[in-house]
Amino acid sequence: MGPHLSLPIVRRSRVKQKAQRVGSNVPTGFRHNGRMTTAPKSSHSRTGELSVRTERRTQLQDITAAVAKLVQDAGVLSGICYLYVPHTTAGIMINENADPDVAADIEAALARLVPQNSGYRHAEGNSDSHIKTALVGTSATIFISEGKLELGRWQGIFFCEFDGPRTRRLRVKIFPD
Amino acid sequence: MGPHLSLPIVRRSRVKQKAQRVGSNVPTGFRHNGRMTTAPKSSHSRTGELSVRTERRTQLQDITAAVAKLVQDAGVLSGICYLYVPHTTAGIMINENADPDVAADIEAALARLVPQNSGYRHAEGNSDSHIKTALVGTSATIFISEGKLELGRWQGIFFCEFDGPRTRRLRVKIFPD
Amino acid sequence: MGPHLSLPIVRRSRVKQKAQRVGSNVPTGFRHNGRMTTAPKSSHSRTGELSVRTERRTQLQDITAAVAKLVQDAGVLSGICYLYVPHTTAGIMINENADPDVAADIEAALARLVPQNSGYRHAEGNSDSHIKTALVGTSATIFISEGKLELGRWQGIFFCEFDGPRTRRLRVKIFPD
Repeated sequence: MGPHLSLPIVRRSRVKQKAQRVGSNVPTGFRHNGRMTTAPKSSHSRTGELSVRTERRTQLQDITAAVAKLVQDAGVLSGICYLYVPHTTAGIMINENADPDVAADIEAALARLVPQNSGYRHAEGNSDSHIKTALVGTSATIFISEGKLELGRWQGIFFCEFDGPRTRRLRVKIFPD
Repeated sequence: MGPHLSLPIVRRSRVKQKAQRVGSNVPTGFRHNGRMTTAPKSSHSRTGELSVRTERRTQLQDITAAVAKLVQDAGVLSGICYLYVPHTTAGIMINENADPDVAADIEAALARLVPQNSGYRHAEGNSDSHIKTALVGTSATIFISEGKLELGRWQGIFFCEFDGPRTRRLRVKIFPD
Repeated sequence: MGPHLSLPIVRRSRVKQKAQRVGSNVPTGFRHNGRMTTAPKSSHSRTGELSVRTERRTQLQDITAAVAKLVQDAGVLSGICYLYVPHTTAGIMINENADPDVAADIEAALARLVPQNSGYRHAEGNSDSHIKTALVGTSATIFISEGKLELGRWQGIFFCEFDGPRTRRLRVKIFPD
């Protein structure tokens, strides 16, 4: 991940579940750091955000460790982790991160399929970035088990920069089972 | 969106949560309009449907406003909005909707990558439509925050018609946090 | 699906909801078969797994019936079914399964877009498999309604083998509404 990945996680502590379920009016005890993005009324999920600093125009950046830490910090034993990229020229992908050549091959294949210049209409010169984002997608869903991201043995999570370098955001929502 | 997008939303009001949690048998108070698609037993999510009228064979149609209205009407402050396309020649995509040239460039790129005629086996003449759907996907996940779709600044939601024009359906499920 | 698709479903029975909601300490009654993957604390979802035996290097295998049975067995009337492929050279796709030529056309189109040999760096000879997985994706989300997968009329679920034949796994999580 390198030094450019910071984790300004915007987390909300969980309402005591049992108390809420019996309808008592125990204080809900939300903690926040001024950047809480979910309404206090919602009580079961945690919402956070990662900041991702990319270094090249096109870059599959491995953010597995950062997302894993966020999940661990959330304290959810079993559930689902949703990742959402709020950009139109960046996406998210799950693929092999053991050999960095795999990410390089995917970057090259996308460049071959979607050339940077190809008579596009959009005047900003980044139509290829939009098209690659359309192919890769802007969200991912990963299960959580035993308090950890339940990735396959060779799977890693890649933030897909297609119009960098930039500082990007990745929104994260964690739902307990 | 134009006049062709209607919103026969099939919504179900939420069961009073507190009442249900203490196990009381307060009437659940479901409202429906005869097209309710979820079982009455489920009590936390809302399920709806949009009807989308497309106008061309291939068309990325901006449906952001319609989905946003549906989310607003659902009254969920924080949660997740799932979009599902129950077709095999149409998909869903999140990308820039500020400049319509972006959608045009994506349509053109997909046409270049997947030609309409290319020695396909499937006899209906719409194999390209199926293949584009496979690349783009049939579902999307968007967070809800402060009662609104939490799209990125430049993001819009596109219904991706690949074998139109037709009247299509988009299923929507909204889960509160 | 054929004889090669087995269903070692790893299911957990649901905690009695009403009992839990009033905070009683009724035994939770989890059943498992030694391969339970979710923590006992989680009480609302079911988690399972399918084993999929593929027969070719590239194969879109129709697993609709197996997933449908798993959903039916779970006894969830309304909710969401998440499918997750824990591999880096296999994905999941929803498309037409009525005419097998559609799957054949999609396989052929992917082979044309992503050739097996194309000067890749990754030394294992399966870069094309990773790239196809990146395009298709490793997860799917399908609504459940009236106890059944709410697929569109022509939709089926395909396990997408891109580096077979192998025995693969598909993780399944079912969330009630």
